[in-house]
Amino acid sequence: MFQVLKTEGRARRGVFTCPHGEVQTPVFMNVGTQGAIKGGLSAFDLKEIGCQIELSNTYHLHLRPGDDVVKRMGGLHRFMRWDGPMLTDSGGFQVFSLAGMRKITEEGVTFASHIDGHRVFMGPEESMVIQSNLGSDIAMAFDECVENPAPYDYAKASCERTLRWLERCKAEHDKLNSLPDCVNPGQLLFGINQGATYEDLRVWHAKEIAKLDCDGYAIGGLAVGEPTEVMYQIIEAVEPHLPADRPRYLMGVGTPSNIIEGVWRGIDFFDCVMPARNARHGKLFTWSGTLNIKNEKYKLDDRPIDPQCDCPVCREFTRGYLRHLFVAGEMLAMRLAVMHNLYFYNKLAQRIREALDGETFTGFREEYSERLAGKAE
Amino acid sequence: MFQVLKTEGRARRGVFTCPHGEVQTPVFMNVGTQGAIKGGLSAFDLKEIGCQIELSNTYHLHLRPGDDVVKRMGGLHRFMRWDGPMLTDSGGFQVFSLAGMRKITEEGVTFASHIDGHRVFMGPEESMVIQSNLGSDIAMAFDECVENPAPYDYAKASCERTLRWLERCKAEHDKLNSLPDCVNPGQLLFGINQGATYEDLRVWHAKEIAKLDCDGYAIGGLAVGEPTEVMYQIIEAVEPHLPADRPRYLMGVGTPSNIIEGVWRGIDFFDCVMPARNARHGKLFTWSGTLNIKNEKYKLDDRPIDPQCDCPVCREFTRGYLRHLFVAGEMLAMRLAVMHNLYFYNKLAQRIREALDGETFTGFREEYSERLAGKAE
Repeated sequence: MFQVLKTEGRARRGVFTCPHGEVQTPVFMNVGTQGAIKGGLSAFDLKEIGCQIELSNTYHLHLRPGDDVVKRMGGLHRFMRWDGPMLTDSGGFQVFSLAGMRKITEEGVTFASHIDGHRVFMGPEESMVIQSNLGSDIAMAFDECVENPAPYDYAKASCERTLRWLERCKAEHDKLNSLPDCVNPGQLLFGINQGATYEDLRVWHAKEIAKLDCDGYAIGGLAVGEPTEVMYQIIEAVEPHLPADRPRYLMGVGTPSNIIEGVWRGIDFFDCVMPARNARHGKLFTWSGTLNIKNEKYKLDDRPIDPQCDCPVCREFTRGYLRHLFVAGEMLAMRLAVMHNLYFYNKLAQRIREALDGETFTGFREEYSERLAGKAE
Repeated sequence: MFQVLKTEGRARRGVFTCPHGEVQTPVFMNVGTQGAIKGGLSAFDLKEIGCQIELSNTYHLHLRPGDDVVKRMGGLHRFMRWDGPMLTDSGGFQVFSLAGMRKITEEGVTFASHIDGHRVFMGPEESMVIQSNLGSDIAMAFDECVENPAPYDYAKASCERTLRWLERCKAEHDKLNSLPDCVNPGQLLFGINQGATYEDLRVWHAKEIAKLDCDGYAIGGLAVGEPTEVMYQIIEAVEPHLPADRPRYLMGVGTPSNIIEGVWRGIDFFDCVMPARNARHGKLFTWSGTLNIKNEKYKLDDRPIDPQCDCPVCREFTRGYLRHLFVAGEMLAMRLAVMHNLYFYNKLAQRIREALDGETFTGFREEYSERLAGKAE
């Protein structure tokens, strides 16, 4: 199901086959939290900006409109009109970052909805049922994402429980896929490595989940407060213990530079809300670094956002027009900015793949990793 | 420049030639207030939803980004990337409805910007300069739009001044079009009939402005508080006095029913913010009347907004999905709703033209005028 086509150091160029099509890796997944992309983009826009695989959020869709509604409407692919590969997260991260009044037991987590405060219970089985109802191509195991820094004992107990939860997820997932009314019976399951910033816990946990024969493995609980160097160290420690014939997904990461460095360390899948969030604040990515389009100096600038970019926005609109839309508070500002930034991320992944194909990724990393680490002016 | 192809009663089927192309009439103009369409639509989306002529606002663009900026960026067509016919209003309506602290003299109006309160002066010459800088195909004369009901004496003095302002507009417009750096030297000028709800003033004013050989004539100051029947009476009173060989534009009107009734009374051009504004509140137009997509009953409805509609939204998305996007507060809700409603209005104008071509407009009016007058459920 996952084929490594080429390697360069630890970096891998691969192809992963999902029920809704192939994913060329390394890949950046485009986030459609509630079955829509921020900034007013539709599933059809995703096609236009080079998205291979869309990511939706279990927590949000469970609360609104309800995964039962989505199932009755034919599953999330049909509901949002995206016919390509799709991954759903487990809901775990949002339960631990967004919801209120959490109570964690061996069974699962009781929490208060961030929308109306009503009490919801979600455990491994519930997360699997929701994701099965949504009908994504890749379901993520239900895990606890602890904050960094976390006390060692808590991190240890938590990742032991996350392991037990993965076993339950796997059993439930197998059962759901074989039900006659299953939306997507070919749905795959990825396990998630946890263990906070403790290398011994991370390695122990990676070895344990590797035994469970998941379709892919994620590294979770990073980019949640620890320094970037610590994140890279954890990846380097964990990577050798993840099965080489399964894709690896670094969850919620990151800057363009983080992605290049992640690939360099053997990661295949990425996702991040950063391109859309930055776009909404006028921070736009270019191949020379970032710029803040709201800056006065772009008022009369008739160049595209990035003269090196061939996205639908850069092909048509000027910096001066974009700046005007932001200053005037027009929704079109958001849409064009999100479209450009997501295109940039998809193009970055494409250029990484081309570099790996041409065995020039080492040079690509040297040229771009630092340049694309810069903050907006 | 305006050719009447066919008539049915007072209704006219025509074609109006602008510097940026032909406009088939009757036509509904799509409003892009600040050089962008509400709901995140771009000029390219306008093409997709059948827009023939775009309308931008002089007042808004003068304040932000400044018509001098737009001129330096090559004019509004190039700035917003719309290459079809374009009309700009005079700024008058916004000065009288949006700005604060107005002081009217023979010279013009001093007012406070609704954005930051700074004092701005706009008279006939200023309005012409701004519209010349924007480079629209059709400039509107600077007028005073009085509220209804207005005292007779005030309405009389005001429409006499508006006549004098039109003479100044025409002189300034001719001068600007002949300047060597004019953005759009073929820019046309429409005069605007005023006179509040007083038929004698309206008729007198219409006769006076008809003498000034404008490229078209608008009826302004309607749909600002008076009953619909009064609006129709005014149109009926004024229409015989407007030159038959020039297009007539009923400003800021209206509901689908108003448009059918306007055409019936000899109107060729319409514009209204209603389709976009209603869309943003979830009120969607259909050929069977309006619906409020936020209604609970659409939660599991897998039909398009209007099964009779072939717009890009109805071709792809369900009521259930649209409702979810509205409830979840996704920007995509606005975009799809605005797109559908504007398409409906453009299609309405197209069907009116087809009815006039086929000499069946009388029947069309009987079938649709009442049905499309309905309020949202």
